[in-house]
Amino acid sequence: MKRYRNGEIWDFEHEVAVATNRQVILGLDGGTTSTVCICMPLMPFSDALPHPLPVLARAIAGCSNHNSVGETAARETLEQVMADVLSKSGYNRSAVRAVCLAVSGVNHPTDQQRILTWIGDIFPSHVKLYVRNDAVAALASGTMGKLHGCVLIAGTGTIAYGFTEDGREARAAGAGPVLGDWGSGYGIAAQALTAVIRAHDGRGAHTMLQSTILQTLGLSSADELIGWTYADPSWARIAALVPVVVSCAEAGDEVANKILKEAVQELALSVKAVVQRLGLCGEDGKNSFPLVMVGGVLEANQRWDIGREVMDSISKDYPGALPIRPKVEPAIGAALLAWNEFMKECVQDAYRR
Amino acid sequence: MKRYRNGEIWDFEHEVAVATNRQVILGLDGGTTSTVCICMPLMPFSDALPHPLPVLARAIAGCSNHNSVGETAARETLEQVMADVLSKSGYNRSAVRAVCLAVSGVNHPTDQQRILTWIGDIFPSHVKLYVRNDAVAALASGTMGKLHGCVLIAGTGTIAYGFTEDGREARAAGAGPVLGDWGSGYGIAAQALTAVIRAHDGRGAHTMLQSTILQTLGLSSADELIGWTYADPSWARIAALVPVVVSCAEAGDEVANKILKEAVQELALSVKAVVQRLGLCGEDGKNSFPLVMVGGVLEANQRWDIGREVMDSISKDYPGALPIRPKVEPAIGAALLAWNEFMKECVQDAYRR
Repeated sequence: MKRYRNGEIWDFEHEVAVATNRQVILGLDGGTTSTVCICMPLMPFSDALPHPLPVLARAIAGCSNHNSVGETAARETLEQVMADVLSKSGYNRSAVRAVCLAVSGVNHPTDQQRILTWIGDIFPSHVKLYVRNDAVAALASGTMGKLHGCVLIAGTGTIAYGFTEDGREARAAGAGPVLGDWGSGYGIAAQALTAVIRAHDGRGAHTMLQSTILQTLGLSSADELIGWTYADPSWARIAALVPVVVSCAEAGDEVANKILKEAVQELALSVKAVVQRLGLCGEDGKNSFPLVMVGGVLEANQRWDIGREVMDSISKDYPGALPIRPKVEPAIGAALLAWNEFMKECVQDAYRR
Repeated sequence: MKRYRNGEIWDFEHEVAVATNRQVILGLDGGTTSTVCICMPLMPFSDALPHPLPVLARAIAGCSNHNSVGETAARETLEQVMADVLSKSGYNRSAVRAVCLAVSGVNHPTDQQRILTWIGDIFPSHVKLYVRNDAVAALASGTMGKLHGCVLIAGTGTIAYGFTEDGREARAAGAGPVLGDWGSGYGIAAQALTAVIRAHDGRGAHTMLQSTILQTLGLSSADELIGWTYADPSWARIAALVPVVVSCAEAGDEVANKILKEAVQELALSVKAVVQRLGLCGEDGKNSFPLVMVGGVLEANQRWDIGREVMDSISKDYPGALPIRPKVEPAIGAALLAWNEFMKECVQDAYRR
């Protein structure tokens, strides 16, 4: 177990009564804007999950994507938020049986291994540790912990991530704005800003986005958009303009409509690529599979409903796609995933004995 | 004149003999990667420029784009490089008659005014000061100081900038990668990286760019591209992949060819938008005008010559476009511009008397 770094983060453990023999699991959702950690009791294995789900505590912290904040800050954020949730729950690390960290920026086995090493230093060696991309927690939040089907996330960023029942996985997009996540909130808004510049300098058609976006941002000329755009590199700040694009499209603006239609095609394409590669639709293309849909871009807008359009496009190719809008947050999905995996390993261990 | 900040930057002036009554002009080209400043003697007014041009000294410093490095750093870089070039020339500020600062990031009158205020603090009030976008220096480097015609720059970024003989001006693009500078070196390379990701995750066609780019970057899998891309936010680092895209296109790769063809259309469109808005082509569309072409993307590649393709596309619409490849650097263009404007103002002043 880790030597306490200045003793600070885990100091609370000295004051926690180790009396109870209750066991807990942790689920963590590390997104690009915040990190949420949930502590749940280890539930007995049964077919039906209790309702409502027993959540002992919830803690929140900043970004834990190492690509955004660097490794040291990411590691400290992860450790801090896990310590916080245990402290709030009144348990210490010896009560923990399994931890699932679903963190954005986990794109490669080396990312996974690095985080496993970090948290392996924090917990006793018998604790089961699972590290995943944050999209996996979103999938699990729709399937209540089961890794099967596909999730489409479209918020500031976008990713599609899928699993077959026998454990194969595939993803599409999720590579950030430089690398073609064009259907994301950032992608939609950046296209709209671009359309304003192009209309202004004569390269593009006139669009209602010009006056609407400038008014929304309190700018008096399209030239000022350049300074505005680069003054703050946060992707979320740009993505926040999506509702403006939707309202212009609803008002009949052709440029805004084209941007949204292209985004719909991009988002549907990500899902189709994953479904195709995993064969989730079966050989005849008609098998049913869960399709979990998450994120602000997919939530019911007014008349122009991006989520519905994406679903329509996917259903044409894969009529078996069963849309699910999760009722719990991704951190709970991560905790359920940890619980599921832990149970599976226990069963396997029992057979081996 | 400015109170010396700690006396450091302008200390050399105490040691400069103020004996000569020679007068000088400064031309500064502030790009996104470096800032170059040139000191030239004030040449007598004549029809023909001396050849070679008399350059007294040249100094170089880092980035002076306030959008990239912030206002304080940008200001200090500008002041330092002007002090350096005067120190090397053996003159002090009292010898300066005119200064042209052509700085990237000057997109709006407020940008211009801010820099004018900074340098107004540095020089005596009779010194003529001109602040422009750095594209203007590139134009002047092709027209030897005359503001007429259009310049197309395509390096890491891209911009088209034009002037009519009666002083109207217009620009297109130059808004950075978020805002649709798709024909830039960065734009071309980002499209190529995107094509690799999309081929890898099933959204796009197979392309030779996959193996070639991964090999160039020393990566073993397309997943690693995500970490590579966001590890360093420098646009120039991504733009450096343009030669790889060109070589794949020359080898017949369809995806790479499509990327380059789209870039050609984008670059030509920027020029056409400027020419159209300014009416540089005259009413019948056939008037001749200088078209200065600058930047790595436009320089002769092997067989796939982006600059030639752009020129072909422009010539179809505007047969009067006269391509110019400058023989002097943009900082000299800025100095010639300062000299031209200074002469014009002297003549006007003389008439007024």
